[in-house]
Amino acid sequence: MQAGEFDLIERIRARAGTRSDVLLGIGDDAALLAPRAGELLVLSCDTLNVDVHFARTARAVDIGHKALAVNLSDLAAMGAEPAWCTLALSLPEAVEAWLDAFLDGFLSLAERHGVALVGGDTTRGPLAVTVTVHGFVPATMVLRRAGARIGDDVWVTGSLGDAAAGLAADASPALRERLARPWPRVAAGLALRGLAHAAIDVSDGLAADLGHILQASGVGARIELERLPTSAELAGLDAAQRWALQTGGGDDYELCFCAAREHRTQILAALAATATTACVIGQIEAEPGLRLLDAQGNPWQPPCNGWQHFPAAQA
Amino acid sequence: MQAGEFDLIERIRARAGTRSDVLLGIGDDAALLAPRAGELLVLSCDTLNVDVHFARTARAVDIGHKALAVNLSDLAAMGAEPAWCTLALSLPEAVEAWLDAFLDGFLSLAERHGVALVGGDTTRGPLAVTVTVHGFVPATMVLRRAGARIGDDVWVTGSLGDAAAGLAADASPALRERLARPWPRVAAGLALRGLAHAAIDVSDGLAADLGHILQASGVGARIELERLPTSAELAGLDAAQRWALQTGGGDDYELCFCAAREHRTQILAALAATATTACVIGQIEAEPGLRLLDAQGNPWQPPCNGWQHFPAAQA
Repeated sequence: MQAGEFDLIERIRARAGTRSDVLLGIGDDAALLAPRAGELLVLSCDTLNVDVHFARTARAVDIGHKALAVNLSDLAAMGAEPAWCTLALSLPEAVEAWLDAFLDGFLSLAERHGVALVGGDTTRGPLAVTVTVHGFVPATMVLRRAGARIGDDVWVTGSLGDAAAGLAADASPALRERLARPWPRVAAGLALRGLAHAAIDVSDGLAADLGHILQASGVGARIELERLPTSAELAGLDAAQRWALQTGGGDDYELCFCAAREHRTQILAALAATATTACVIGQIEAEPGLRLLDAQGNPWQPPCNGWQHFPAAQA
Repeated sequence: MQAGEFDLIERIRARAGTRSDVLLGIGDDAALLAPRAGELLVLSCDTLNVDVHFARTARAVDIGHKALAVNLSDLAAMGAEPAWCTLALSLPEAVEAWLDAFLDGFLSLAERHGVALVGGDTTRGPLAVTVTVHGFVPATMVLRRAGARIGDDVWVTGSLGDAAAGLAADASPALRERLARPWPRVAAGLALRGLAHAAIDVSDGLAADLGHILQASGVGARIELERLPTSAELAGLDAAQRWALQTGGGDDYELCFCAAREHRTQILAALAATATTACVIGQIEAEPGLRLLDAQGNPWQPPCNGWQHFPAAQA
């Protein structure tokens, strides 16, 4: 069934939810919001395009979930508490059933994190979703990429490589689910306020994302590959295949962070309170660059170095 | 020349500009911003898609300008002062020359209005631009769609119909320019704080957009068509043709607003101080609906009622 543009907007507005700091949501030229006094506004924006970030056959409910999840993951990596979002949705045709399923995924995740959908745009075009999320963090508690210190532990939450493994044609339902419906580590990010020196979310692969921390912090790191947290689904793979997924594969949306060794117990306790597992996978060192070491302490070279939308042309 | 994704982001970052309230712009998981104490945050989000909002042959510099302009126009209609924006750019290929020209248009308009580009996303996909703009307005000075009062003058800035006329194959360069590079009425919106009871920007056509004010305010209006502000380019058209463009054509990005009759002089002076022309085109009435009247006071029916991306299906 085809609906008009204003019908679609009304359909979204009716379900958008609200918060006490939303004075005006969808329905005027712009939203009116009351920022939290004394905290910084944290803002992230990510796009998902059909055939690039998700398959043409992906379920609408999963696309809705993931479009918000990848943005919340960025807020989590800053230690921010999410508050509001906008949704820009391009649709090749206005199918109400598709929109309803998309909103099921998007809004149930929004509700889980207390996020109000306050505005956006609905246009005709190839299927694409751009979300901008807004959150808050006290200025003294921001987690940034810069800030890792020599001697810091390098940590990662959850398990790595599952989303990349979920791309395989014969992937298990659990791995496919991990790719289709990532769960942003919002509670973990809040728990790490005041504890982590630096953090990033693992969206482009551990090597690439940890590399951003190292570059921003002016340090290097050694990672012991056998410490990489591994799900039961990946435990059976041979080491080289598994490490390739775990260091080069994207879309896990775990947090990678750096913290002082003396805070290990405190960090585990703080994360346990949010039901988040995490483990130390290596250390920050003065020597620049990322060293991936196998069980014998020998350097291991990953076959792929993360995901770029536009690989640089060969010279 | 093809560039990698991180090269494109760096190319944008290097030119993004900043403000004292931007603690961290492009380059981390999210931007860190200091909201203005005691004011509301005003937020708008609009997408432009190739083949829908602009032709495949449109100049990159114009697309960049318009993508920001349409969003600034929404802030203007709320009486907000713009501050920050994000840019989500989907590109079929990473062509540096195209990006540079796009940024020329986008960033020169941003600079003109003191707007810092603080984040976004660069992805591969069909050409599409989604911008979210953020501004500020004191809570007591917001211009909303609701608020028009019976007896109010209905005003419009600048001239109407030019952008729609610019769509014609034989349109003059001035009309084509009006369509390609709208100038958002930011200064006029600020000048109308405390003077206008209700406002909207004319993006979908006067009839549709004024209709939103009437609906939100629970009132009606009579518009005298011969009062519609007309550019020299459209002055030669016959009345019916001109009125169709001026009431049904979109993309003018003028402000339509309602204000008390006794403030006429004050409004003209406030707008003159921002070099904005404006005129009264009718009055708000108790009877619901929009009445378009010709020179004899007879009702005139427009052939088209604004632009919708998904026209509702016929029953």
